[in-house]
Amino acid sequence: MTGFLAIVGLGPGAADLVTPRATAALETATDLVGYGPYLNRVPLRDGQRRHPSDNREELARAGFALDLAAEGRRVAIVSAGDAGVFGMAAALFEALETAGGRDDVVVEVIPGISAVLAAAARIGAPCGNDFCVISLSDNLKPWETVLARVAAAAEAGFVLALYNAVSKARPWQLDAVLERLRERLAGDIPVVFATAVSRPEERIQYTTLAEARSVGADMRTLVLIGTAETRCVAGSGRTRWVYTPRRVGCGAAAVGAA
Amino acid sequence: MTGFLAIVGLGPGAADLVTPRATAALETATDLVGYGPYLNRVPLRDGQRRHPSDNREELARAGFALDLAAEGRRVAIVSAGDAGVFGMAAALFEALETAGGRDDVVVEVIPGISAVLAAAARIGAPCGNDFCVISLSDNLKPWETVLARVAAAAEAGFVLALYNAVSKARPWQLDAVLERLRERLAGDIPVVFATAVSRPEERIQYTTLAEARSVGADMRTLVLIGTAETRCVAGSGRTRWVYTPRRVGCGAAAVGAA
Repeated sequence: MTGFLAIVGLGPGAADLVTPRATAALETATDLVGYGPYLNRVPLRDGQRRHPSDNREELARAGFALDLAAEGRRVAIVSAGDAGVFGMAAALFEALETAGGRDDVVVEVIPGISAVLAAAARIGAPCGNDFCVISLSDNLKPWETVLARVAAAAEAGFVLALYNAVSKARPWQLDAVLERLRERLAGDIPVVFATAVSRPEERIQYTTLAEARSVGADMRTLVLIGTAETRCVAGSGRTRWVYTPRRVGCGAAAVGAA
Repeated sequence: MTGFLAIVGLGPGAADLVTPRATAALETATDLVGYGPYLNRVPLRDGQRRHPSDNREELARAGFALDLAAEGRRVAIVSAGDAGVFGMAAALFEALETAGGRDDVVVEVIPGISAVLAAAARIGAPCGNDFCVISLSDNLKPWETVLARVAAAAEAGFVLALYNAVSKARPWQLDAVLERLRERLAGDIPVVFATAVSRPEERIQYTTLAEARSVGADMRTLVLIGTAETRCVAGSGRTRWVYTPRRVGCGAAAVGAA
């Protein structure tokens, strides 16, 4: 018997940012698997089974979803944003490899609007030039690797998009990263904390690298850190936009030593 | 008079990867502005004006769209993928800044499924860990900056997603980047050329860093380069998946000296 497993990115939260392909996969699934609060975003359907689980159980959840699909079910496993960006997709393929492949399950990954794309669009075009996407979580990589990657990317002139910047279990890491960046980059570089973009509780905080502190950020916050070239421009009313021009001057974003 | 300007990401090409928010903006626009082949993806509507332009005229196109909106029109300016990732959004804000803001135009950026997210989902979860998005175009930045960024990101252990890797005007740059990377990274690192993902002419080429050459890549190709940790796993039938695990070992992706 062949089962089917779709790994579905739900986007940042707004219903009109879910792709039709994702909606179709959710509607035709017999079983929905995922972190409870994300499953709650999916409209209820009669006859569809839901299997909510806690956060930080990705590998067990992925194995469970594969087993369900192998029974011939049509499973959708959901992530917020895009499942391939610190979501369920990598965990699913880890589980697939651990299981020695699975010839009886057809897998599809359905992309979604990631948090970084949603936050960037909300505030302008901060990722208008080369950018890096980094998770500050040190659950699965050494903290020194996190710091080294942030520093290398900043010194090379990349815009930085930070995932998993703050949580109850991760209270000091964002401040440590900001401090490390202040040693390398100009203090007037724009920094934006974009929290729960497109959802009712959305909150956008504009600051600079010199002033940025983790106060006000939480696990729903995507942190965007510009380069020396990133600019702010006023729009209509009280709108303010942050964008990174396509043109790079002499490429000197770093002010300190490496 | 207040005009309205939406900067709309059309996604990678498939109709079911356009968000409902983008579709609504395209349906309610009085005027559509953009590169001709991208405008051709938008269904025709009676009474709607189209203003196609050539490629590489982003700033003039952005200024034109702002002027149209300032006349009270409802304008949608389109990009393939996500407009904030090497698309029209940064050009639009450059034009807005050059015009000294514009209190008479309400601007909205509508995110789209970017080429990197579409390609990653198509082949698995190559961006399952920290990744960088880099344009190889040296129209607007020094070529040495491109090379330095690629090298810095690779040495720090980031997955690389390369935009604008190959075109008629850019025939040798991708090979130069691959050569630079071969001096730093192991030859068995997975490399994927993902061309025209989700469109009828889609083509996926799997190779390794040692074997990768720009033959077969064109301006529709997104190049993904893994890390020492990126893995390949067989799926059902003849499917093969490429993913980068969430766990980072000792972080040693580089084999050569910096």
